[in-house]
Amino acid sequence: MNERLIGLTCSKCGNFYRPDEGPYLCPECCGVLETLYDYEKIEKFEGKDLWRYRQLLPSSGRTNLLVGVTPLYRSDALNEELGINDLWVKDETRNPTYSLKDRASAVVVVLARELGCKTVTCASTGNAATSLAGLSASEGLKCHIFAPKTISAPKLVQLQAFNARVLKIDASYDDCYDLCNRFAEKYNWYNRNTAYNPYTLDGKKTVAFEIAEQLEWEVPNKIFVPVGDGCIVSSVWKGFVELQKIGLTDGLPELIGVQADGCKPLKESFDKNKGCERAEPKTLAGSIAVGKPRNGFMALRDVRNSKGKFVSVTDKEMFEATKLLGSTTGIFGELAGVASVAAIKKEMENGKLDEGEKVVALITGSGLKDVEVALKLFEKIDLLEADEGKIYEHIEEISTNRRGR
Amino acid sequence: MNERLIGLTCSKCGNFYRPDEGPYLCPECCGVLETLYDYEKIEKFEGKDLWRYRQLLPSSGRTNLLVGVTPLYRSDALNEELGINDLWVKDETRNPTYSLKDRASAVVVVLARELGCKTVTCASTGNAATSLAGLSASEGLKCHIFAPKTISAPKLVQLQAFNARVLKIDASYDDCYDLCNRFAEKYNWYNRNTAYNPYTLDGKKTVAFEIAEQLEWEVPNKIFVPVGDGCIVSSVWKGFVELQKIGLTDGLPELIGVQADGCKPLKESFDKNKGCERAEPKTLAGSIAVGKPRNGFMALRDVRNSKGKFVSVTDKEMFEATKLLGSTTGIFGELAGVASVAAIKKEMENGKLDEGEKVVALITGSGLKDVEVALKLFEKIDLLEADEGKIYEHIEEISTNRRGR
Repeated sequence: MNERLIGLTCSKCGNFYRPDEGPYLCPECCGVLETLYDYEKIEKFEGKDLWRYRQLLPSSGRTNLLVGVTPLYRSDALNEELGINDLWVKDETRNPTYSLKDRASAVVVVLARELGCKTVTCASTGNAATSLAGLSASEGLKCHIFAPKTISAPKLVQLQAFNARVLKIDASYDDCYDLCNRFAEKYNWYNRNTAYNPYTLDGKKTVAFEIAEQLEWEVPNKIFVPVGDGCIVSSVWKGFVELQKIGLTDGLPELIGVQADGCKPLKESFDKNKGCERAEPKTLAGSIAVGKPRNGFMALRDVRNSKGKFVSVTDKEMFEATKLLGSTTGIFGELAGVASVAAIKKEMENGKLDEGEKVVALITGSGLKDVEVALKLFEKIDLLEADEGKIYEHIEEISTNRRGR
Repeated sequence: MNERLIGLTCSKCGNFYRPDEGPYLCPECCGVLETLYDYEKIEKFEGKDLWRYRQLLPSSGRTNLLVGVTPLYRSDALNEELGINDLWVKDETRNPTYSLKDRASAVVVVLARELGCKTVTCASTGNAATSLAGLSASEGLKCHIFAPKTISAPKLVQLQAFNARVLKIDASYDDCYDLCNRFAEKYNWYNRNTAYNPYTLDGKKTVAFEIAEQLEWEVPNKIFVPVGDGCIVSSVWKGFVELQKIGLTDGLPELIGVQADGCKPLKESFDKNKGCERAEPKTLAGSIAVGKPRNGFMALRDVRNSKGKFVSVTDKEMFEATKLLGSTTGIFGELAGVASVAAIKKEMENGKLDEGEKVVALITGSGLKDVEVALKLFEKIDLLEADEGKIYEHIEEISTNRRGR
C-alpha cells in the first residue's frame, strides 16, 4: 500500500478507517468510502503513463497494459458546429479495452495482486466488465463477471477473448450487482464493484489529473460527464479537489452530470432536491441505463459542491451527437459515451452555455462496443450492382444530397 | 512536400520520378513506386508522436488525431504459453480507428490537404476504409469508400459515424479496387489505394521505426506480419532499411509473412518461386482475404531480401491465437490481426523458431472490428436464472472445467 494513503472516510457518516482495516463500504451506515492521502507529502509527478500519479493511488504497482494517457483534442470543426470556441474532448475510447473504466480496473487489479488475491469480480452493463476482464487477463488473475442479459454482443465476445468466467444472468444490472456482492463475499474474491470498492474512484480520478495537465493546469469552467452509477462524476470531482489541495491548480470546475431522458433518477433527485428514487431504464444507452445509481449520494453531493447541475438528453440526441462527433473529429463513441456532447449541444441551443467558456466533454466509451445499437440507428446501406453507370448515378445522388459536408 | 524527399523509384523497372511529377504507379510498367529520401540529411528524431519521423515522410504536416505511438509489450504469460523468451507484441489495435492502417491514412490525408484535394477515396475490406474515413473526418476532407459486400457490420457503422460516402458494392475487394481507381481518376479524388499510392508505405513504415526505437534500436531477429495485399510487410522492411541507412540500427530482421490457409497466393508463389496466381479467398479472416495481392511483387522481393519466408495458418489456429493473446495480455485482436501469433505458435511447435530469438508479432487490428466472426467462433453463453443456487452450481462447474487458468 502507498504510505501516503492515510485512510478511508465514509461519504455519508464521516467515519474514518485505516487502510489496513480495509472495509469496502462503511460498516456503520453502508456509505461509500473515499480515500484520504497525505497531500503535503506529494512531490512532482514523474513518468509518462498513468502511474505518474501513483503518489495519489493506493498501490505503487503498475499494470502490464498501457492504461490512460488518452488524447484531449480541441476540434475547430466540432466547435464551429456547436458555436463554441473552447471545447475540448477527452477521448477515453483510446484505453486498452476502449473505455474510461480501464482506469479503475487498472488500479484494482494492481491492488488485488498486492493483497495476494487471485480472483477478481464485478457486475457490469459491459464496460467495467470487459475492462476488468482485460486487465485481469494481463495480470494473470482469474475474473468472474456478473452481466445482465442486456449486455451487448461485442462486450460479451470481448469477455470471452479475455477468458473471463461470464455469468450472464436473466436479471437487471441492479440485481446482478447484489448477486455479485454476495458471491464475492462467499468466495472471498476481490470485488471491483463500482461504489463498493473505494479505489475505483482513485483510478477514475486520473482522468481529471490528465485533463488538468493537458490544459497546463488551467481548470476548465465546465466538465460534462455521462452519469450512470455516478462514480465517474465523483471521481472527476475528487481529482480536481486533490489537485487544488496539492497546489497544482487554482479553482474547481462546474460538473454537469448527463443522464438519459429515459433513465434520469439523479437528475430528478437533484432538481427536486429529494432522495433518489429507483427508475425503470428506458434508453438504448446501455452504459448509463442504471435505475438505482450506487454512487448517487456522492454524485449529488459533488455536483452540488461544484455548483454544477444535471441535464438529460434523448437517445435521438445522443445518436445525433455520435454523428456530429464522428464526422468532425474521427472519434466513434457509444451513445452513453457521447451523451456529454449531446448535452453541450442542448445547453448551447438553450443559451445556458457561453461560447467563450472552457468546456471539456468526456467521451467515455467506444461505439464499437455497442455496435448493435448503432446498427439499429444508422440507416441501412444499399448494396449496389457492380455496374459503373449505376455507381456513377449513386455518387451523383449522394453528392447532391450531402452538399456542404 | 518534404525537401528531403528526392523522388520515387519504380519497384519493378527502376524508373525514377521527381516528387512533383507525382504519378501513382509507374507510367512505364505499372509497378508500385517507392519513396527515396536524402538519408544523409536526416537529423535526430524529436517529438512524442508519429510526426517525430516527419523527416522521412512526404509532408511535414500533422493530423489532429493522435496516430501511432502504440505500445510494444513483452508478456511473460504469453511467452510462457508459447515456450519462447523474447517475444514482443506490437499492439496496433490502439490506433484511433483501431488498426495499423491509420498510419497510412494519416500520411495520406495530410498530403491530400497539402495538395489542395478536398476528397479522398479508397477501396477496402474494412480497416483501411474506416481508417481513411476517420482521419479524413478529423481533417475536414470528404471521403468516398468502395467496400465489398463482405464488409463487417462494425466497420460499416464506423464508416457511417465518420460520415463517409459508402459505396457497398456487390463485388469482391479486388473488383472494388479497380472500380475505385477508375472513379478516382474520373472525379480527380485523392486516391489512397494500397499498392497504388506510394505514400501509404511511408505511413506504415513508422511502425518499424517505433518497434526499433522501443527496443532501443536493437533489431529483432524475426518479425511476423499478417499479409493480405502485402503492403505492411514491405513497409516494415522499408522502415528497417531506412533506419540502417541513417545509421540508427545495425542489421535487418527476417520478415515472416503470414497468410490464411484459405487464401495464400503469396505463400504459394514464394514457395514455388513462380508468379503470383489469383486465389479464391476461403477464410473468415477478412482483412487478409485478398486473392490478388496488389503489392505482391514488392512483398515477395522484400521477404526474400530479408531472408524470411511465408507461412500460413488456418482460421482455427487464428481463433486459438485470439484466445491465447486475449487471455494472456488483455489484447483482443481480429482473426487477421493475430495471424502473427498463430504463426509463431506453429513455428515453435514445428521447431522452426528458437526460444532465444528476439521476435516481434504485429497485431494489426482489433477484434471488435470483426465481432460477427468472433460471434460465430466463440461458444454461446447460456443465460442463467437469477437464482443463487443455480448460479452457485454454475460457478462450481466452470471452476472445475477450467482449473489451471
